Amino acid sequence: MAFDTILVANRGEIALRVIRTCKEMGIRTVAVHSTADKDSAHARAADTAVQIGPGMPRKSYLSAPAIIEAALRTGADAVHPGYGFLSEDPDFAEICADNGLVFIGPRPEVLSRLGDKAVARELMTDAGLPVLPGSPGTVDSATEATDLAARIGFPLIIKAAAGGGGRGMTVVRHQSDLLPAYRQTRATAQAVFGDNRVYLERFCDSARHIEVQVLADGHGSVLHLGERDCSVQRRHQKLIEESPGPGLHKELTAAMARAAVRGARAVGYTGAGTFEFLVHDEGFSFMEMNCRIQVEHPVTEAVFGVDLVREQIRVAAGQALGYAQEDLVPRGAAVECRVNAEDPARNFAPCPGTLEEFVPPGGPFVRVDTHGYAGWQVPSQYDSLLAKVITWAPERDQALDRMDRALAEFRISGPGVHTTIPLLRDVIADPAFRAGKHDTSFLDARP
Amino acid sequence: MAFDTILVANRGEIALRVIRTCKEMGIRTVAVHSTADKDSAHARAADTAVQIGPGMPRKSYLSAPAIIEAALRTGADAVHPGYGFLSEDPDFAEICADNGLVFIGPRPEVLSRLGDKAVARELMTDAGLPVLPGSPGTVDSATEATDLAARIGFPLIIKAAAGGGGRGMTVVRHQSDLLPAYRQTRATAQAVFGDNRVYLERFCDSARHIEVQVLADGHGSVLHLGERDCSVQRRHQKLIEESPGPGLHKELTAAMARAAVRGARAVGYTGAGTFEFLVHDEGFSFMEMNCRIQVEHPVTEAVFGVDLVREQIRVAAGQALGYAQEDLVPRGAAVECRVNAEDPARNFAPCPGTLEEFVPPGGPFVRVDTHGYAGWQVPSQYDSLLAKVITWAPERDQALDRMDRALAEFRISGPGVHTTIPLLRDVIADPAFRAGKHDTSFLDARP
Repeated sequence: MAFDTILVANRGEIALRVIRTCKEMGIRTVAVHSTADKDSAHARAADTAVQIGPGMPRKSYLSAPAIIEAALRTGADAVHPGYGFLSEDPDFAEICADNGLVFIGPRPEVLSRLGDKAVARELMTDAGLPVLPGSPGTVDSATEATDLAARIGFPLIIKAAAGGGGRGMTVVRHQSDLLPAYRQTRATAQAVFGDNRVYLERFCDSARHIEVQVLADGHGSVLHLGERDCSVQRRHQKLIEESPGPGLHKELTAAMARAAVRGARAVGYTGAGTFEFLVHDEGFSFMEMNCRIQVEHPVTEAVFGVDLVREQIRVAAGQALGYAQEDLVPRGAAVECRVNAEDPARNFAPCPGTLEEFVPPGGPFVRVDTHGYAGWQVPSQYDSLLAKVITWAPERDQALDRMDRALAEFRISGPGVHTTIPLLRDVIADPAFRAGKHDTSFLDARP
Repeated sequence: MAFDTILVANRGEIALRVIRTCKEMGIRTVAVHSTADKDSAHARAADTAVQIGPGMPRKSYLSAPAIIEAALRTGADAVHPGYGFLSEDPDFAEICADNGLVFIGPRPEVLSRLGDKAVARELMTDAGLPVLPGSPGTVDSATEATDLAARIGFPLIIKAAAGGGGRGMTVVRHQSDLLPAYRQTRATAQAVFGDNRVYLERFCDSARHIEVQVLADGHGSVLHLGERDCSVQRRHQKLIEESPGPGLHKELTAAMARAAVRGARAVGYTGAGTFEFLVHDEGFSFMEMNCRIQVEHPVTEAVFGVDLVREQIRVAAGQALGYAQEDLVPRGAAVECRVNAEDPARNFAPCPGTLEEFVPPGGPFVRVDTHGYAGWQVPSQYDSLLAKVITWAPERDQALDRMDRALAEFRISGPGVHTTIPLLRDVIADPAFRAGKHDTSFLDARP
């Protein structure tokens, strides 16, 4: 089987990213967009664009009925969900199947089990992956939370079972803060995810966020594409990602890669997925699995020379992966910076506006994934990501020098438009970051 | 030694290309520009920009005194000449040295010997490289031309000894055309290069233009970085280049690479250089050597993961190359398309104008080197190259599909602005080109 038409159920840079690979594969594309996105680059790039609802995500990019209707109307045979929105929603995956549409991602039951972070923890424990001490499942009462906290010790972290992407998490450092934090996190989880279940886990202050990219097909092949270091975060949001992880021992990363492949096999995973681990003094621990393409996938593509979206599409079409593990040979180092439309002077609040000037950098070993263009009015309803800049070089230091050059070259301006570029350049110049000695507390510990 | 400041004695995309690498290496940059280029991207990108003369190249980019003065005034310690203009001028290289400036390229005497194409032919014959049957040196009389033509046979080609870059060449198919062509080529050579000497060589109708990239340092290391196929030409001007050369036998390309390394050693070459060969039914033959960075160098960079300009700078600073031959492992396939501002309806005459819209393509494995930007008025004095689009993929076919996607995505418009993009896309879609069965006559043989 090969697809004739793919509907891309997303917006912004990732929708454009998927459309580009579809075009290269000779596949027709359907974009969906909200009224707020009618002039968006992703809508312009597709062969067909369908307006599916108002700016509010719930009524457009999160509306399964609107998307399915667009797919059926345009004769799509598959749906690529991108990241965020409906990308990890098992119900959406099932509705696609019910309507004869191939959902480009793992099977609904796999999404369902891994989407519950407490269940995922158990599954991976059973598969022999190391996890941090924590609650065996979700914690359903204050008494249970108090008992478990005494066993786990402080600091600990309370996480929403339905959470992910860095939201619905509270770090607790003292016994006295436990119950207020427990109640608060449950309330937030209910409000954000419609599911108040939470679980507890030991919290590591100076850990690194290291994740492993996997690819699996329906023919028994499960491959890994090395690791990414995503330790530069602000309020649990990744800002800078790179591959390989600097300064990690080869034995450690090899063990993590093996663990990820074992975990993916254990749950019958198919498509592209990411195992998120914490690396700490005692080794590494599984945190969660992301069952979709990640924002930071381009650093892996740069190092391995693999188009991950292409492989997702191949696998969903029932084909075997285009690679064997021994074909996947990493080369050099790649870094990605997320350029967000945010105002540093207002605590990095998103600052949408009209892009008067928008000239991304170019030249050797620079990739830019962006839906921005001069004249575009950045809508206020969505996340503030404007562009991803990815640089590659034989060595990490050169890739970072190249990143600084590329960021300096990026011309973005307009009334009220501010970006994270100055912050990113500060990080790139920071001696601790340069030395690869940073952990997830790196940015929050700085003024 | 490391350079503090480099003056880039060029304009357009190659000047910007060199400036980018300088920035990445922490080297200050000085741009020079004509009055016609005062708003040029290369002038904007450099730390310092010096206006050196009027639009006419002879009084600006070809004026050694103006450039040397700018270098001395700005405290530059080295000069990067790019390609074209003064890049292969031994006198300019010598004037640089006389003024205490490092010329980033081979020594003046090497430039001088290889710049005379008739001498280069002899030198490479002595070094054991195969050359096509031809005149032993230049041909200084009509009688000599007639005698030699009888020995060489038809078709033959008359080339200006001082030529290069595809100019000053005439193909002669019949005895009766020989003397008119001989006189015409001498006159052209005199007018264009100020040197009327010509030489003769057998002409191959269905040959491929294959060139080998070399890098050599002052410490005895001479490396090759595989081959490029530049057979898609229009009036001897390259339009599409790629690496590796499609469908070539490994033994043939290995023999060509060995020949290039041997030739570079024989002449004491240093820096980045290119051996241009013809591949024909009987094997391969040396044509000429280009003693500078080439327009098409990015395809080699993409396949080998090497920044060639960085290596040029290292070598000129007296450092050893950053690689050994065994480090240079090719990966996948890369293609470059030259996007020129030309009007297909007027026989591809250059059509300068104002770029109202200018949005280059982006996304995975796409590189764009361009000095164009929205609002820029393309000057009429210089060549019509607007941008180079380079795509990479694990396989040639994918790289070509990606190129077609990228070219389709490129938005260039403005009053009177036409580009070669439709022509390039036609070539990309051509079955003979797709099959790698094209030769240098490919484009001229089409309407």
